[in-house]
Amino acid sequence: MQMLKAYTSRFSGLQQPSDSNTANTADRKIMIPAISSTQNATLSQALDACINNKTKPPGSLGRLESLGKQIGLIQQSTQPALSQPSILVFAADHGICAENISAYPQSVTWQMVENFLAEGAAINVFARQNGIALHIVDAGVKHEFGERTQLINRKVAMGSHNFAQEAAMSSEQCRLAIQHGKSLVVALPGNVVGFGEMGIGNTTVAAALMHKLTGIPVAECVGAGTGLSAEGVLHKQQVIEKAVSLHADVTQPLDILATFGGFEVAMMVGAMLEAAARRMVLLIDGFIVTSALLVAAKLQPAILDYCVFAHRSDESGHAKMLDALDARPLLQLDLRLGEGTGGALAYPLLQAAVNFMWQMATFESANVAGKS
Amino acid sequence: MQMLKAYTSRFSGLQQPSDSNTANTADRKIMIPAISSTQNATLSQALDACINNKTKPPGSLGRLESLGKQIGLIQQSTQPALSQPSILVFAADHGICAENISAYPQSVTWQMVENFLAEGAAINVFARQNGIALHIVDAGVKHEFGERTQLINRKVAMGSHNFAQEAAMSSEQCRLAIQHGKSLVVALPGNVVGFGEMGIGNTTVAAALMHKLTGIPVAECVGAGTGLSAEGVLHKQQVIEKAVSLHADVTQPLDILATFGGFEVAMMVGAMLEAAARRMVLLIDGFIVTSALLVAAKLQPAILDYCVFAHRSDESGHAKMLDALDARPLLQLDLRLGEGTGGALAYPLLQAAVNFMWQMATFESANVAGKS
Repeated sequence: MQMLKAYTSRFSGLQQPSDSNTANTADRKIMIPAISSTQNATLSQALDACINNKTKPPGSLGRLESLGKQIGLIQQSTQPALSQPSILVFAADHGICAENISAYPQSVTWQMVENFLAEGAAINVFARQNGIALHIVDAGVKHEFGERTQLINRKVAMGSHNFAQEAAMSSEQCRLAIQHGKSLVVALPGNVVGFGEMGIGNTTVAAALMHKLTGIPVAECVGAGTGLSAEGVLHKQQVIEKAVSLHADVTQPLDILATFGGFEVAMMVGAMLEAAARRMVLLIDGFIVTSALLVAAKLQPAILDYCVFAHRSDESGHAKMLDALDARPLLQLDLRLGEGTGGALAYPLLQAAVNFMWQMATFESANVAGKS
Repeated sequence: MQMLKAYTSRFSGLQQPSDSNTANTADRKIMIPAISSTQNATLSQALDACINNKTKPPGSLGRLESLGKQIGLIQQSTQPALSQPSILVFAADHGICAENISAYPQSVTWQMVENFLAEGAAINVFARQNGIALHIVDAGVKHEFGERTQLINRKVAMGSHNFAQEAAMSSEQCRLAIQHGKSLVVALPGNVVGFGEMGIGNTTVAAALMHKLTGIPVAECVGAGTGLSAEGVLHKQQVIEKAVSLHADVTQPLDILATFGGFEVAMMVGAMLEAAARRMVLLIDGFIVTSALLVAAKLQPAILDYCVFAHRSDESGHAKMLDALDARPLLQLDLRLGEGTGGALAYPLLQAAVNFMWQMATFESANVAGKS
């Protein structure tokens, strides 16, 4: 956790983004960074030539080729490289838990944060294995952790409100969460960042966001989360449907985020926008992380050029959410854990995509004959 | 290549397997090692308990859980560990190339072997990245390499015969290749071994083996290989169909192997059988490697308990070949390169499956509440 400690000490206060504009939304105070598309015809051709001249039949490295090319376009280089990867895990609690929509008690959120800090969770194991620095952020957990050098304290509140009764957060809280997310990314050392989350109840949050942002019926957005029964899933669906009726007038992305979101989701939205504005590679995990991306992509569609989709979660709505983004994830391992585990597990594939572009011989350099 | 050099020096001569029996086949001289099923109800329950007590919702690590359990059963331990992984890449040439069934000239086989030795191929890059020792074996390449300390010389002949006209190899050559494969594995230091291959024309070999061993029509077994046109694929199919008619009387697995196989395939059959007999984890790559496993599994069906299927190749017959084995691969990245690349890329997932079992906290140790 030494790296994490060094990291937290870097954050004495919030930093302001340098390159930004104002979102055309209900809340004009939120600064949305400018994000350019990575499309570049000349570089695209140069990358194709570089990839096709490697000692292999054209196209035979499949998705690693398109991945290497994507990273090249992001970095504007025919020799892309990944450095100092990080995963930010944002934790928060959710007022919607009062509606009995999770298989686990709400206290598991803070208990799992403690588990992250003690390096006992799955994300700790996978990040360590694959050389990824892990940063744990308290975005709004309903628990007093006290002074903890290893925990990045960006607590907006002691959990969100119950969106079945009122907006999950105020516009000001939403703005603050986004701003925190942005400033956390500004201080990251590397050029690739993954996103993870922990928050009992947040598959309900993500399903509500998905419905509002894609128009997909609620029934197709909800799933078993950490392990609800079929009855529990139906109840969860009904809770969301009632809340959607209650907040029927909410239509703008940031208003949807404030109304149905959570602090960890809002913080991820800010972190993602800032990371793409800085031309970092964004490693997108499962259902909840992708729901944050839905918000970010509504604000800045070009963000999708920077996203590598790590894993298709077993949470039932995730496949349709990915379809809505026209995204094809690298892994399909039936995980449904969150924490950023899909991103951590997929990272070696990103390394492989970059390494083959650097390290493989060309037909010419290796004196290998081409196709006859 | 230091590791490879150390490895080759260990092979001054063939070693005899200690635990073996005679295959009930036409060729009674080939010694097939005994392979036990890994099934064990008591250990299976203990592994389930271990996995379910980790700080995550039950089942939420998806296929990593079944993979960790499989490795536990192979190693007969609730704390499985992977050590000193190797990939053996077997190279050989094929007489069937005379029938014009490949997009690349036959000389590419030896040129790619040189590329492996110079560490310029994709498998070099991925094996190095993931800490896997790579061993290159000349199983029967049509080229004189001379004395090369980095190349394991097990050349059975200067390429196989053209199976469109005669058997690809004699029974004695087949026996020798299997024996070489077995002895190569005996000398491996670790407990996990991947298989790779290089041989222009060997998707034709694999398609013929697949047809003969599974009964799937030839048209569904053939694909574009390294990049044939649709016309080329049709020609390849016709070549195989004629050869199948020519050798219609060949029905026993080892006879099928000798008639339609290649030296790299036969050597892999021996290596796989020996590795499973030694309770190693077998990392199965794409279309050609899986065709070798089809032969091995006909001889010793329990070998499948030891196999981790790394990747579903984009070569069109591979999906059906995997279905025939009831196998679900970890990765689907549209690779169609061979060399063992799928296995090298999947290896970090095996590490993750083992690491979570060792390193994750339990609900009790982490004071995390369970399901409510």
